Amino acid sequence: MKASKNEDFDEWYNEVVEEADLCDKRYPVKGMNIWRPYGWDIEQNIDFIIRDEMKSTEHKEVYFPLLVPESLFQKEADHIKGFGSEVFWVTHAGDRELEERLLLRPTSETSLYSIFSLWVRSHADLPLKTFQIVNTFRYETKMTKAFIRVREIHFFEAHTCHIDFEEAEKQVMEDAEIASRFFNKLSLPYLISRRPDWDKFAGAYYSLGIDVLMPSRKVLQVASIHQYRDNFSRPFEIKYEDEDGRHKYCHQTTYGMSERVLGAIVGIHGDDKGISLPSYIAPIQVVIVPILFKGKEAVVEKECTNVKHELEGIGIRVHLDMRDKTPGNKFYDWELKGVPLRIEIGPRDVNNGVITLVARDGIKREIARDNLEEVEKEMTLFDRRIFGRAEKFLEGNIHASHTLEKSDGIIEVPWCGSEECGLRMEEETEMKSLGTPFPEKTCDEKCVICGGEAKHWLRLARSY
Amino acid sequence: MKASKNEDFDEWYNEVVEEADLCDKRYPVKGMNIWRPYGWDIEQNIDFIIRDEMKSTEHKEVYFPLLVPESLFQKEADHIKGFGSEVFWVTHAGDRELEERLLLRPTSETSLYSIFSLWVRSHADLPLKTFQIVNTFRYETKMTKAFIRVREIHFFEAHTCHIDFEEAEKQVMEDAEIASRFFNKLSLPYLISRRPDWDKFAGAYYSLGIDVLMPSRKVLQVASIHQYRDNFSRPFEIKYEDEDGRHKYCHQTTYGMSERVLGAIVGIHGDDKGISLPSYIAPIQVVIVPILFKGKEAVVEKECTNVKHELEGIGIRVHLDMRDKTPGNKFYDWELKGVPLRIEIGPRDVNNGVITLVARDGIKREIARDNLEEVEKEMTLFDRRIFGRAEKFLEGNIHASHTLEKSDGIIEVPWCGSEECGLRMEEETEMKSLGTPFPEKTCDEKCVICGGEAKHWLRLARSY
Repeated sequence: MKASKNEDFDEWYNEVVEEADLCDKRYPVKGMNIWRPYGWDIEQNIDFIIRDEMKSTEHKEVYFPLLVPESLFQKEADHIKGFGSEVFWVTHAGDRELEERLLLRPTSETSLYSIFSLWVRSHADLPLKTFQIVNTFRYETKMTKAFIRVREIHFFEAHTCHIDFEEAEKQVMEDAEIASRFFNKLSLPYLISRRPDWDKFAGAYYSLGIDVLMPSRKVLQVASIHQYRDNFSRPFEIKYEDEDGRHKYCHQTTYGMSERVLGAIVGIHGDDKGISLPSYIAPIQVVIVPILFKGKEAVVEKECTNVKHELEGIGIRVHLDMRDKTPGNKFYDWELKGVPLRIEIGPRDVNNGVITLVARDGIKREIARDNLEEVEKEMTLFDRRIFGRAEKFLEGNIHASHTLEKSDGIIEVPWCGSEECGLRMEEETEMKSLGTPFPEKTCDEKCVICGGEAKHWLRLARSY
Repeated sequence: MKASKNEDFDEWYNEVVEEADLCDKRYPVKGMNIWRPYGWDIEQNIDFIIRDEMKSTEHKEVYFPLLVPESLFQKEADHIKGFGSEVFWVTHAGDRELEERLLLRPTSETSLYSIFSLWVRSHADLPLKTFQIVNTFRYETKMTKAFIRVREIHFFEAHTCHIDFEEAEKQVMEDAEIASRFFNKLSLPYLISRRPDWDKFAGAYYSLGIDVLMPSRKVLQVASIHQYRDNFSRPFEIKYEDEDGRHKYCHQTTYGMSERVLGAIVGIHGDDKGISLPSYIAPIQVVIVPILFKGKEAVVEKECTNVKHELEGIGIRVHLDMRDKTPGNKFYDWELKGVPLRIEIGPRDVNNGVITLVARDGIKREIARDNLEEVEKEMTLFDRRIFGRAEKFLEGNIHASHTLEKSDGIIEVPWCGSEECGLRMEEETEMKSLGTPFPEKTCDEKCVICGGEAKHWLRLARSY
């Protein structure tokens, strides 16, 4: 690693994603990177957590086709307005021009909902809770950035249908709880904000954005939850017959996330030695580095192998590094790749019946060789420490503001709720509004723009 | 189920894939179907087996972008000739026309190999063994059929690079072993044939096709293994420095499979009651159906719940069907969905300390309630029985032929090895040549076309 995270975060980020073997940016299409095995492993572990959450909340996994006919896409007017300028179009197959153009899904509302109208018939079919993990495509015109702004997106999207608005509201709350458990496992503190109307998802009734604060003090949206009400069910005719035989439109929600989650982990937990992975998603949770001295190799290697097998036995993903390199070089490699815990075993340790644990953040501890369940505890402690640091950083960078001074980090400003005043705040601070805190935080002040009654705090920040 | 498998296999197949909740064919783009949760679960279990095989043979999983620039695609001349007529072209993004057209990968040689040339530098980088599981796209002009001929394909592809031809040949042998273990778990007997030169993969030095025999007595290619020699490494410049400092081209192989494997399972193991799943991939391996009588509900339900938990404890995927339906209706549903084993428990069984096992193929057995490990054995026996039946069918439908009579099933014909004679055989039998048996089967006869010395058997069959 050449760049320094504190001195030039963007440069450091761009370097570390390749140095740590997460991706390769040399693919000859802009904004489309290659997932290297290590990066893909991590992403699959992230997918595993959300699949697990989906399963325990009775969502069913589906897979819908990538290509969407133009006519389907145009059914919901706001949606096409929001996405139309950034879709990729398939116009030909072989030498033939297609009768109807097909687009690569930028998100899957329009393909799913045309079929939901066939799947939902009666109230007994509801709630319909589905999700898929797919590749989506957006022709981003801004500068691309690995995991953060890409043109082929590794995308998780949950889509649900409910009998009415209140049931859909309950789903929004469940999604918020899922997000809480999910981001907790990744040691990522976040804020949920109800986006202002001028920045909600194309077609949504309202949108909740889940944002993290990157070391650049810019926020990164890592997830979103949308309440659609019946905005899509009407054009797509997703109707059900209720218990009294009346036909009604469903109310719908979505919950979406992407590989940005990995971008957040890289950015927030990393340091000048490399990335730093929460133990839940680390492909290697523990690396064992033998400290070899001439004549003592056999005894140390044997001990290392035994410890490896015992750790595997208690379900830990462990790697024994027997490469012909110095311990120092090995430390360097595994710190770069963010392995949460290193175990060092030398001949003296074997004699004394101890092993040394070194967490990725440098915290060192000696434990008894026969007390390996301590390793799991140590991983949990590590996860909590990196969470704690990120939380302190986030909290230290949120400020109430009555003066609209430009600022790094996030400011919360008393706001009357009008679009006009909100946009003026964005203009004067050169920041983007994230929306109002969710759940709502009481405010009893004056709008800093119009001086009128301010019932809301509007959050503003620079953002990716 | 209305159609009969024996009377009209195609009709039966088309019906059962939807009836058993595998897919929904109502998506408005031809040849692109929706994976329903049950079908997607099964496919993910299939993916799990191959991922496991890849892991144990030290292949690394990657993910490459979907879109391939036209210029990359055109680097290998035979390859573009083979696939050019069936690729989907992205020509626009938003309102803009792209500077260079991008195609949706029909297979990923061209995207991977441009990067392999950067990854491979020295002999120490070899072998390079990678795979990915991705969506690929082919504009099929023939009649589409769920899982068997689709335009968006769920595709597994392994790609390897080696120091020379011999090492690549060893990889081909390893792939054949992987195939053997893989298809064995799915109870699918198969044939491997070395495809004739006029039918090898576009760009390959030679191709091995792995075919199964469907009940229609047409063969279905379910996997292929290709030896590329240096056919791709030359245009893509995948070179390494050997131990003596000389620069050499790699030799490469691929191994590919798709959701056709699921199509084969549906077609070969199913019957007029529905599909029939090998236990390795069944989302539900055992369904428990309580046989309830008035006044005895509580004791039966309790027993069913206990058995469920105990089976889960020994790692079996089990479902307890407590729906308010008759046992007969439940049997119907789970037979349709191909659950390998059903457990019936009634009040008398509780008293007698027994449970009844009914395999999907109708074999019934009573076991002691306290002997639940028998359940696992029963699944294995079921898997073997369906394998045995499929094997008998395959073997009963391969015939040596010296007369080129038209025939159902597969014929093996003495062949001199010339393309001319091979194509004449195809013409006269109205069958397609699968190629020569792999490993080679000795032949010491006369070519049935030219009468010349025949050192090979040429396999011919009608095919999907």
